[in-house]
Amino acid sequence: MAAAKRTAAPALTTDRALAQRLSAFERALARAVRERAGGPGRLGAALRYAALSPGKRLRPLLVLTACEAVGGDWKRAIPAAVAIECVHAFSLVHDDLPAMDDDVYRRGRLTTHKKFGEALGVLAGDALLAFAFEELTRLAEGGLPPARVLEAVRVLSRAAGANELVGGQALDIAAEGRKPTARIVRDIHVRKTGALMGAALALGALAGDAGARTVLKLQTAGTQMGFAFQIHDDLLNAGSSLKNLGKRAGTDAARGKATWPAAVGEKRAAAEAQRIMKRVEAAISLTCERPRLLMQLIEATAHRQR
Amino acid sequence: MAAAKRTAAPALTTDRALAQRLSAFERALARAVRERAGGPGRLGAALRYAALSPGKRLRPLLVLTACEAVGGDWKRAIPAAVAIECVHAFSLVHDDLPAMDDDVYRRGRLTTHKKFGEALGVLAGDALLAFAFEELTRLAEGGLPPARVLEAVRVLSRAAGANELVGGQALDIAAEGRKPTARIVRDIHVRKTGALMGAALALGALAGDAGARTVLKLQTAGTQMGFAFQIHDDLLNAGSSLKNLGKRAGTDAARGKATWPAAVGEKRAAAEAQRIMKRVEAAISLTCERPRLLMQLIEATAHRQR
Repeated sequence: MAAAKRTAAPALTTDRALAQRLSAFERALARAVRERAGGPGRLGAALRYAALSPGKRLRPLLVLTACEAVGGDWKRAIPAAVAIECVHAFSLVHDDLPAMDDDVYRRGRLTTHKKFGEALGVLAGDALLAFAFEELTRLAEGGLPPARVLEAVRVLSRAAGANELVGGQALDIAAEGRKPTARIVRDIHVRKTGALMGAALALGALAGDAGARTVLKLQTAGTQMGFAFQIHDDLLNAGSSLKNLGKRAGTDAARGKATWPAAVGEKRAAAEAQRIMKRVEAAISLTCERPRLLMQLIEATAHRQR
Repeated sequence: MAAAKRTAAPALTTDRALAQRLSAFERALARAVRERAGGPGRLGAALRYAALSPGKRLRPLLVLTACEAVGGDWKRAIPAAVAIECVHAFSLVHDDLPAMDDDVYRRGRLTTHKKFGEALGVLAGDALLAFAFEELTRLAEGGLPPARVLEAVRVLSRAAGANELVGGQALDIAAEGRKPTARIVRDIHVRKTGALMGAALALGALAGDAGARTVLKLQTAGTQMGFAFQIHDDLLNAGSSLKNLGKRAGTDAARGKATWPAAVGEKRAAAEAQRIMKRVEAAISLTCERPRLLMQLIEATAHRQR
């Protein structure tokens, strides 16, 4: 996704309802990170820099709209949205480190370790991961039963951990420079992108106090959606002739990154992304009582041109 | 604490009751890390290497004995003991990284990043931190009310985060090579060592379903105790003439580490450690209904010669 790092984050939609949720989220994130995440001296500055850097905020918007989709009040899901964005920010900061992707820029700004030094890059990521769990416990303050909040802690810790997000990054690094097979790339994408999107829908559903089956169905749909989004990103990055796209394409190929189009071909990749998204949308429509805004967010994301 | 890294971990006591809790903990940690923490390929191996390296297991033993001290069943506190050891292991792996203390050995073995590479060092630490919270939620399976388990999540995420453990490491790095003042060293020690020991007593008390005031008192005592232990470690490391000590002393001084004896002098440091420990022991005796084993563990630790 290197190409995206040099462009400003485009709004996912001009829809008013989504814009309202987005701006409420931005305020809540800024307040959480400034007032509660803490950190002495430059650690605090590095942490805020990492967490408050501009982004599409897709994952937190998925949390809020999933909460609504199951009939909940999206405002009560805000702690979960903040938590998932902190986990996402943690993963970006650590992925950018010299020992990993060694990136200098992300979305037009210096990466956290480039601006604050490598030690603070590691520590700011660590602190964001720890803070996510503290923030998540605040769901209880909105009246969600503690047992459901604990379930949210379980979902997020698994999604962030060795079998999912962190595991996907480990596989990604191990695969770099090797010929990607479909099985390996799917495994990386599902863990690295799918897990946190699955967790986003699950946390939203939990914040809306949905039943266990609904939570699981939305989590599965979110994981699949993350895979499809990552295929779409791979295609955008490859400067695919199948789509009309941005400028700095081809960076994944230059870096030897494992991408889905490289593994199965662009045409098959595009067809598969579409097929998955149809299944995801069907699952969400069937599972949720008020899926409109969540579907709208997903559609806008699926058709983004960066 | 570099000197300790090249010696095997000595048992804290020969007491049978403590030995029994220690071996139950070791089994539980091994099972948790092997069966649940996961991680594909070499990430799993790195994570297990980091978490299962030999150690005194002081923090988990504090959890178990604090649970008993408030009248609880120590076996039910095991998930909290595993969680706190995983946070401790995470912090050691990240502290050893080249961008931090750049250590090659810890307790006679290669550090995790030296054995598995820097990327896996970062990722194994990340995964251990995330796993700690998943493990902590298992307290609910032992019958602890979910609201208390959530309180445990809050305590651990704060203790691990930017204001405590991670913040202490940031201050430690910033202070390296500068003349240490008493204020700065206290700040580092309380965050870096005190916070997790405070969390250990608090989690033990929570696992024993103690009242909120007891939890808070034990947390405060644990934090102070961590400070005193760190002073003791600093004195041991300095090869203090006040004590009869190990071989490879003086490594903190060579490295320009901020230590308490360097800030206030060895004599004052030793007196202060003793004064703090007296207050801590008084607080624990007053707060707990069955403090015997916890006190015994603390005494053994306070008088250790490495």
